[in-house]
Amino acid sequence: MLQSKLFPKTKREAPKEAESINHKLLVRGGFIDQLMAGSWTLLPLGWRVVQKINQIIREEMDAIGGQEMLMPLLHPRSIWGETGRWGSAKDNPLGAQEVMYQFKDIRGKEYALSFTHEEIVMDLLRKNIKSYQDLPVYVYHFSTKFRNEPRARSGVLRGREFMMKDLYSAHVSEKDMMEYYEKVKVAYAKIFKRLGFNFRITEASGGVFTTNRTHEFQVLCDTGEDTIFYCDKCDWGENKEIFQGKEKGVCPKCKKGKIVKAKSIEVGNIFPLGTWYAERMRVYYADKNGMKKPVWFGSYGIGPTRVLGTLVEVSHDEKGIIWFPQVAPFAVHLIELPGAKNAKSVYDILKGEGIDVLWDDREVGAGEKFADADLIGIPVRLVVSRETGDKVEWKNRTSGKPELISLEDSINKLS
Amino acid sequence: MLQSKLFPKTKREAPKEAESINHKLLVRGGFIDQLMAGSWTLLPLGWRVVQKINQIIREEMDAIGGQEMLMPLLHPRSIWGETGRWGSAKDNPLGAQEVMYQFKDIRGKEYALSFTHEEIVMDLLRKNIKSYQDLPVYVYHFSTKFRNEPRARSGVLRGREFMMKDLYSAHVSEKDMMEYYEKVKVAYAKIFKRLGFNFRITEASGGVFTTNRTHEFQVLCDTGEDTIFYCDKCDWGENKEIFQGKEKGVCPKCKKGKIVKAKSIEVGNIFPLGTWYAERMRVYYADKNGMKKPVWFGSYGIGPTRVLGTLVEVSHDEKGIIWFPQVAPFAVHLIELPGAKNAKSVYDILKGEGIDVLWDDREVGAGEKFADADLIGIPVRLVVSRETGDKVEWKNRTSGKPELISLEDSINKLS
Repeated sequence: MLQSKLFPKTKREAPKEAESINHKLLVRGGFIDQLMAGSWTLLPLGWRVVQKINQIIREEMDAIGGQEMLMPLLHPRSIWGETGRWGSAKDNPLGAQEVMYQFKDIRGKEYALSFTHEEIVMDLLRKNIKSYQDLPVYVYHFSTKFRNEPRARSGVLRGREFMMKDLYSAHVSEKDMMEYYEKVKVAYAKIFKRLGFNFRITEASGGVFTTNRTHEFQVLCDTGEDTIFYCDKCDWGENKEIFQGKEKGVCPKCKKGKIVKAKSIEVGNIFPLGTWYAERMRVYYADKNGMKKPVWFGSYGIGPTRVLGTLVEVSHDEKGIIWFPQVAPFAVHLIELPGAKNAKSVYDILKGEGIDVLWDDREVGAGEKFADADLIGIPVRLVVSRETGDKVEWKNRTSGKPELISLEDSINKLS
Repeated sequence: MLQSKLFPKTKREAPKEAESINHKLLVRGGFIDQLMAGSWTLLPLGWRVVQKINQIIREEMDAIGGQEMLMPLLHPRSIWGETGRWGSAKDNPLGAQEVMYQFKDIRGKEYALSFTHEEIVMDLLRKNIKSYQDLPVYVYHFSTKFRNEPRARSGVLRGREFMMKDLYSAHVSEKDMMEYYEKVKVAYAKIFKRLGFNFRITEASGGVFTTNRTHEFQVLCDTGEDTIFYCDKCDWGENKEIFQGKEKGVCPKCKKGKIVKAKSIEVGNIFPLGTWYAERMRVYYADKNGMKKPVWFGSYGIGPTRVLGTLVEVSHDEKGIIWFPQVAPFAVHLIELPGAKNAKSVYDILKGEGIDVLWDDREVGAGEKFADADLIGIPVRLVVSRETGDKVEWKNRTSGKPELISLEDSINKLS
């Protein structure tokens, strides 16, 4: 795409109220725009990154049998009443009134905005599941969640309206549920590895749903709000809540490693919820003997917009963002400087090869172009100028050394 | 994908309250599920169709320079107050209180749910546009709209929560706006042609925004709620509202054709809105002489979920849906009957060729399999059985005649 047409332009200054790195850099680079506290437009560049994040998630969800669909965002009060989650947490440990947007319309009907979707999936299941032959079910969607967070800050890390990929699974037994839970854990680990994160899986409390532990996926990050404890040799890890009161000595699992404390950002979590929901919402199936039994249920979430912010928190320098290639808005930033004769042909050839190129065709100085390229953070920069002739100057975003190479060689390096 | 794993199963009976064909067939086929009046889950099959519809729209939006992004759904009251659209239509011809979901949260802040997004785009523009060099801007998104329709019925044709693709354009002049408006009109015509519709473009009133006419894209359909008038020889067409009082004689444009009256479903509309929004929301740019001028603005909508319903209304028979190949949830329905030896290998080979296949691997009778195949409506059915040997039986959804051909030949016919 032509940078002269890209909406909007980059900004020299970050918003005054911006505290976090992702907020500053994503706004300055033209990836996001704030409508109100905790509410963001994903601008064309930001939407490109989120689509790449989503595609990685989608591939791994499909690989474990997930079926993509799309559930509504406006929910009737009645459905949230069935599990008691409509209420206040003061009265009920599950009550969500404080963060759930609830309202009455002009006809007097009461609604909640999608805080999460367990109740909606349960309603789908009870209408469509009859016997053990109809199970298991694995369904997921990418959709909007609304949570009225008291403090909406940290850029896109904690929004009042944000995107979530939520997967739900329904099973005939605890054993089947736990086997799938382990599969999802592996799929999530693959996703976060593909996204380029240095992360740990930490145990967390199961709350009122289950005596099983749940798991969180925590990206190591000095600017993170969370604190985790993990073993420096094996895969043992716990979140702050359940580690509380324990000692930071030798790893209780491998007995070799040392327990390390670190700051982190939670990017995913998985819950083996058991039969709690099925019992309250009357979601039963008939087993082989015709006996009615409650469905075993799990839910699994990843926040793609939170992933967007986390990517920036962990990969940037003083000049701007450094996107990992697999999530970069474009594969190549083609910078045209005065006197270049081959800009258009280089652009056309790269596009013809199926490579996503942002072509800086603007009539502005080289300094501004390089500064914008560093801010936007596309991993590969190709410069064409009077000096490069029919070659191109290749520079990685993270390396200081440009190389003069043929276009053919750059295509080979990009493929 | 394996039909034994597809969620949910088909249903023998349509819901009692279902009146329209799309409601009955989409629910029975497992494409949609109703959460409450006017609110639908797009189940895996339905979501597949909508993604194909969206991809056709996306390609044509990108071809006219559209940049995809994603705007928020929860809007502050203040922004809707700027144009007066927060208010009641009793007080203001633009007031939308009756259909706009409006509410106050527990902190006392007032919100509206996304009824449409003109105000949000205007806010983006005023923060990001300075001079004529920053224009034109073409941005679009696929997102959720909420409209509290008094009568939410007709399946997915009229929902209270539905998907819309809305494109917005901003320009330096009326001339530039109208040139782009004509481009969008051509792009929309391409989209509806690619979707397989028999449609007419009808003029409609510009309302309070503009003395220009706006245009609607109307699919001819006997079960449609709209009435249009069009010339049977040229492209002249008007909606009921502006045709009112005129005579159904000779075409006023070509002077040859006859004016025909027909039932239709509106699937898209385009509005050259002018400077009405920019003046109210103070969206100005500096022209070449440094003079401040209001931005010229257009908006253009297509409802993908309404398109989904319309496709079923115009293409079905007594047995079920008949999907056009370009929007079908799968390209091929592979039906495995008892004694077939090659089902798995046919499935793997088709998938290897990049063909989307639904494999009916269930242990149910042939009658049930054929009935489900007709209901789901995939355009091509391939049967393998004891009798087909290493060949396959090819049958189009719309033709009664099966043909025994080699797998190679079927792959050629599908590519």
